[in-house]
Amino acid sequence: MSTGADPLRTDQLPDRVEGALRQFFASRAAVIETVGGGYREAVTALESFVLRGGKRVRPTFAWTGWLGAGGDPEGPDAEAVLQACASLELVQAGALVHDDIIDASTTRRGFPTIHVEFGELHRRSGWRGRPEQFGESAAILLGDLALVWADDMLHSAGLAPEVVARVTPVWSAMRTEVLGGQYLDIAGEVAADESVESAMRVNRYKTAAYTIERPLHLGAVFAGADDDLIDAYRRFGTGIGLAFQLRDDLLGVFGDPEVTGKPSGDDLRAGKRTVLYALALAAADASDPAAAELLRTSIGTDLSDAEVERIRAVLVELGAVARVEDRIDALTADAFEALDSSGATEAGKELLRASALAATRRVA
Amino acid sequence: MSTGADPLRTDQLPDRVEGALRQFFASRAAVIETVGGGYREAVTALESFVLRGGKRVRPTFAWTGWLGAGGDPEGPDAEAVLQACASLELVQAGALVHDDIIDASTTRRGFPTIHVEFGELHRRSGWRGRPEQFGESAAILLGDLALVWADDMLHSAGLAPEVVARVTPVWSAMRTEVLGGQYLDIAGEVAADESVESAMRVNRYKTAAYTIERPLHLGAVFAGADDDLIDAYRRFGTGIGLAFQLRDDLLGVFGDPEVTGKPSGDDLRAGKRTVLYALALAAADASDPAAAELLRTSIGTDLSDAEVERIRAVLVELGAVARVEDRIDALTADAFEALDSSGATEAGKELLRASALAATRRVA
Repeated sequence: MSTGADPLRTDQLPDRVEGALRQFFASRAAVIETVGGGYREAVTALESFVLRGGKRVRPTFAWTGWLGAGGDPEGPDAEAVLQACASLELVQAGALVHDDIIDASTTRRGFPTIHVEFGELHRRSGWRGRPEQFGESAAILLGDLALVWADDMLHSAGLAPEVVARVTPVWSAMRTEVLGGQYLDIAGEVAADESVESAMRVNRYKTAAYTIERPLHLGAVFAGADDDLIDAYRRFGTGIGLAFQLRDDLLGVFGDPEVTGKPSGDDLRAGKRTVLYALALAAADASDPAAAELLRTSIGTDLSDAEVERIRAVLVELGAVARVEDRIDALTADAFEALDSSGATEAGKELLRASALAATRRVA
Repeated sequence: MSTGADPLRTDQLPDRVEGALRQFFASRAAVIETVGGGYREAVTALESFVLRGGKRVRPTFAWTGWLGAGGDPEGPDAEAVLQACASLELVQAGALVHDDIIDASTTRRGFPTIHVEFGELHRRSGWRGRPEQFGESAAILLGDLALVWADDMLHSAGLAPEVVARVTPVWSAMRTEVLGGQYLDIAGEVAADESVESAMRVNRYKTAAYTIERPLHLGAVFAGADDDLIDAYRRFGTGIGLAFQLRDDLLGVFGDPEVTGKPSGDDLRAGKRTVLYALALAAADASDPAAAELLRTSIGTDLSDAEVERIRAVLVELGAVARVEDRIDALTADAFEALDSSGATEAGKELLRASALAATRRVA
């Protein structure tokens, strides 16, 4: 049934994605019951994690990419496309559950992370061994389950075989890239990698490709788009994805805790190797050894608010903030040019422009 | 080209599986290079792990299942089937890499486990932070990569779309079951679960379904087998898989260290909740409180060889060993009956009988 107010049905998308995910979990109930024991409770914890999840950014980009490539939200393949888009949330759930172990994060989306939740279950139950070890083990297995179910959901979505054949290499590249980005991120952090190039590489593969470029690319291949549109989408997605991450880096240091919900200067304390930090360090090495010393000795330490304030001033003085803003502008401009000159539908272009502005001009 | 000596080409199978895996890794080189940084080295470590891997049990069962269902090793789909069979080794690699973190194992296949290898890389490189944390993080990501590549390999094997459609639910069930079996295993261990039923459940899903039943089932659907043959394969695979695990449990306590390569009584020291142990405990609770006390206080502790010897005697006296042997016999007999009366080809039956005997009568 067509809804006059939103012919592309994008404002209902998060609810529809959630519905598809609920339906997928329901479809697994039989095999879970067959295995029995405590598996049902463990899977329920994963389901709650997936269902309380966020803004459904990746399904939204994939769906919008499909619309912009001529997909018909009232057409016969819309339901299969929706399910395929929703499967991206299971990839993301697996990535987050494992990332939270890697980062030793204790909360996610306002709730305990999965490894913390299962550690608490162990403690509450008075079980043997270390609660932390059980929590991490359970979270490794549930993250694995989310990853393999992402594939199952994609491959049972009901896409036509010729669509599946086009999707396979893109789906493969996306997951291979994001795991690479995550590996480079942890390796760069322990190696104290100071290069702008390494930080950009992590942004490219951990964020831009995985969050925007490849979801759009998937949307395009769902619709059977031509190579020109795919290229335009990819250029747009890479530019906006990188700009999004650079905005995130600025907010991680300069964001208002009241708005972002994170402590002020969080990224500095966490020791994140951002492009902002790498640019500042390069500038300081060239002109201001004292500032370079300050940056190197401060990162990843438990800074006071006054120290955070001082580093912020240094980042501004070194011109790093301005350079990051310039990069955001240049990436956004290039992305918009790619989109504007593409063969995407006008409605699709409009939606993508709005998403891009929301992603790159936000304050939280 | 037909080889007179081995028309079904099963003795060359491990080499052919290894060749397919090499080829798959080579096919990922471009995307890995694109991501760049240290990703290539990390993936090389995973590749070495996969290539030095074992007996290729799961691909062999899948291939044999396909042959027994009429698959033609000289036919046009043999190459695609081989690649699909080989993809099971990537599922297994992911499972092992993650299992080794969960079990805190330090060696696998005669080499350091992946998390130990990356911990050593961290230490050798003088990087920041805890080597163990980096090692585990890298191993989580590489295990994930193996799991997602298993799907990619299956879906790029070149199976016909109607075959893929039949394969999808079986592939899904297999991975969902093994993750459930692993979860029940760790949950049963920390909860000190003493029931025979729980131990059998873990055997069923962690071992029997994943190692034999589902690989045979996959082989059957590669060949388009009818439901009768699929049912027979599944009954055969479940029986032989459970018998295999029960044999493993006996060897874990009674095996000759010179032959098994594991310390004598290894499973007792590790605190494994085996069917053997659960049967002994049930018998002791009914008739011999002192033996029950000994079993409960010994498991999972650092036993001397003399203590292991004493527990062995108790397991025999309680009749638990005889009952496990009886179960192995009954399961094997039922499995053979299912196979014998099935519509599998005579050559397929012969190969499966030989594999079954090797799995259930082995001494190491």
